[in-house]
Amino acid sequence: MTVEEICRKAKEHVPSIALAPSRSMNAMLQAAAAALRANTMYLIDENGRDIEACTRGPQFIDRLRLNRERIEGIAAGLEKLIALPSPVGEVMERYTTPNGMEISRVRVPLGVIGIIYEARPNVTADAIGLCIKSGNAVVLRGSKDAIHSNRAIVSVVKEAIAKLKLDPEFIQLIEDTDRASSLALMKMNGLVDVIIPRGGAALIRDAVQNSTVPIIETGTGNCHVYVESSASILMATNILVNAKTQRMSVCNACESLVVDEVIAKSFLPFAIGVLREKGIEVRGDQKTRQLVPDVTPATEEDFFTEYLGPVISVKIVRDVSEAIEFINEHSSHHSEAIVTKNAAFAERFLNEIDSAVVYVNASTRFTDGFEFGFGAEMGISTQKLHARGPMGLRELTSYKYQVRGNGQVRG
Amino acid sequence: MTVEEICRKAKEHVPSIALAPSRSMNAMLQAAAAALRANTMYLIDENGRDIEACTRGPQFIDRLRLNRERIEGIAAGLEKLIALPSPVGEVMERYTTPNGMEISRVRVPLGVIGIIYEARPNVTADAIGLCIKSGNAVVLRGSKDAIHSNRAIVSVVKEAIAKLKLDPEFIQLIEDTDRASSLALMKMNGLVDVIIPRGGAALIRDAVQNSTVPIIETGTGNCHVYVESSASILMATNILVNAKTQRMSVCNACESLVVDEVIAKSFLPFAIGVLREKGIEVRGDQKTRQLVPDVTPATEEDFFTEYLGPVISVKIVRDVSEAIEFINEHSSHHSEAIVTKNAAFAERFLNEIDSAVVYVNASTRFTDGFEFGFGAEMGISTQKLHARGPMGLRELTSYKYQVRGNGQVRG
Repeated sequence: MTVEEICRKAKEHVPSIALAPSRSMNAMLQAAAAALRANTMYLIDENGRDIEACTRGPQFIDRLRLNRERIEGIAAGLEKLIALPSPVGEVMERYTTPNGMEISRVRVPLGVIGIIYEARPNVTADAIGLCIKSGNAVVLRGSKDAIHSNRAIVSVVKEAIAKLKLDPEFIQLIEDTDRASSLALMKMNGLVDVIIPRGGAALIRDAVQNSTVPIIETGTGNCHVYVESSASILMATNILVNAKTQRMSVCNACESLVVDEVIAKSFLPFAIGVLREKGIEVRGDQKTRQLVPDVTPATEEDFFTEYLGPVISVKIVRDVSEAIEFINEHSSHHSEAIVTKNAAFAERFLNEIDSAVVYVNASTRFTDGFEFGFGAEMGISTQKLHARGPMGLRELTSYKYQVRGNGQVRG
Repeated sequence: MTVEEICRKAKEHVPSIALAPSRSMNAMLQAAAAALRANTMYLIDENGRDIEACTRGPQFIDRLRLNRERIEGIAAGLEKLIALPSPVGEVMERYTTPNGMEISRVRVPLGVIGIIYEARPNVTADAIGLCIKSGNAVVLRGSKDAIHSNRAIVSVVKEAIAKLKLDPEFIQLIEDTDRASSLALMKMNGLVDVIIPRGGAALIRDAVQNSTVPIIETGTGNCHVYVESSASILMATNILVNAKTQRMSVCNACESLVVDEVIAKSFLPFAIGVLREKGIEVRGDQKTRQLVPDVTPATEEDFFTEYLGPVISVKIVRDVSEAIEFINEHSSHHSEAIVTKNAAFAERFLNEIDSAVVYVNASTRFTDGFEFGFGAEMGISTQKLHARGPMGLRELTSYKYQVRGNGQVRG
């Protein structure tokens, strides 16, 4: 099938999931989880074919690998969705107009969601689960490196749904993984309602540049921790170390430290020492290097870089105004934190920093659908349209207006 | 200035409107309204230069024309916004996580909104007013035919704001009106947060195809009225005539009538007679022409056409299932109405029709921000992402998460 035929098929089968009662959604999730568990050996075999064919490095292969434990994790993830309420059908507001029409704004699924992603087979099952519970049809376009794994997961899940005598065709996988298929998916206006690219910066940029279907930009995180002059040095160090080192390869990890001049002398040599103990390379501006001479010089490019690894950039500023200006200019508008005891500065930071999530005295690592209590996560949006920050089930919905009248016409 | 310089200037001045207190927004609106009134003669003169240069037809020139009455209408429109609450700062939800962080979801402006529009100078002032009250910077890119009018309106409004000792530079007009400037604006990712095209189908299509900045699709309305077999013939006729003829050039006007077979014989000859009295040309499918032989044959293209004028297409269907299928296939997902006495069919129509606004026993003409009680309108969204249906001030906002902690780190 061509990409267009695949998308048309997904769209034709939208009603089978969009209008499905909650108990059918849950039955699908339960059956999918059970089937993935029951087919563990088959999934590991198919995944083995991908791993055998893969010529990439060990980190890449690690992300690609499925084993017993990971398949159990994927199945458990689907089961967790069962307990969450489906957002579909929620009446967001209801009112009566002066001429007597009752207007209801009702949450509805988006329709067909296209997911373009990299060599992580778990995304295949995650995305299917989130789309089931939010009532959306889904077109999956994973990477070539994971094609056998993806095909196996999709076929196991669809068979399990079919066995319930429910229609599984709202789930579609594009098996053709060349560049043309990704570009074609991005042009399926009228068949696909939104595309969510999940992966690295290059993938996101490609979607921004080429998609005529609306997209939700996710995941680029050049996150800052700002230590204001009144901060507790201990709290600042704890938050900095957690934000930078607790998990370095993720989008909510800290990439840049901003420090007030007056606290830098007491805080920075200590903080840099702790970071270095954790194996972090520190790159600083001129003022930082005056305080700690053996710090590598940071270039302007450093301050725009999402390292996703053991490097951090450091900038010393005069005051909260310069800090806010510096962060708004360099950040990717994902997550930023201030450490301070000054309530007025905290409020200024909360209001003036233009990012999806802004923290006072907490680590940026909390930007996550599960930590936020959503019970699920499709990614972190860094755009302002539609959804911002962690996206759970609610963020995978739209709404419609239902108007009930008794013959009203416009005068 | 280049388009990029103009957009950069708008972005630099975002804080002056995004962080403005409500009383400053209102002072700006009041001053702008007063200044437009005080400069009526200047505006009419500048508009005269546009009209003199215009080689288009009388309808086009009518939309382009500013006169005393219209300028008063524009000023009154700005004043109406004063009474509306600004959506900025609304706490949409607030909760505390198990580890004690307080998470607030707070409504914030989108940032910089780009508006691309046609030769209607009133849109210039409307858009400025809506952006002021929603806290957004705005980059206006009107058409060549209205450039003197647009320049005059923008300069009058900006001078009025400057006289209040407030910063007017969050309002920017692209004076260069060739195609390249519009294309350039559509590529200003990082400087412009959203583009709203306001105008005909060609303009919208151009933005969908070329914009890498997220857009909100507005305004194409191939709206249906469906007369179900149990409908009151009188109510159906009133709703149909209102939806088709009350104002034909607008997106919420009816373009297609769908009628149940069993009611067609009693309803259709009568309804077609009434439509013809109103000067409407009727184009029908074969079954329609069996009932009313002198009806023009409708082509498949007719059923996809937004006439915006005195033509309507008619389709006879077996039942509500065929009606829903037919409408979902042909509509532009704007507004559709069912006329029925059957509550179950009404609910099916409300749930299964995939359009922004779905009516039971009321005219499609009500799809309008003012009729919906929003007090203002930026357009009607026909996409599902971000906003659907009438867009008021709320739909011109995003949100951010503000998290208040006391040293929390992730375990």
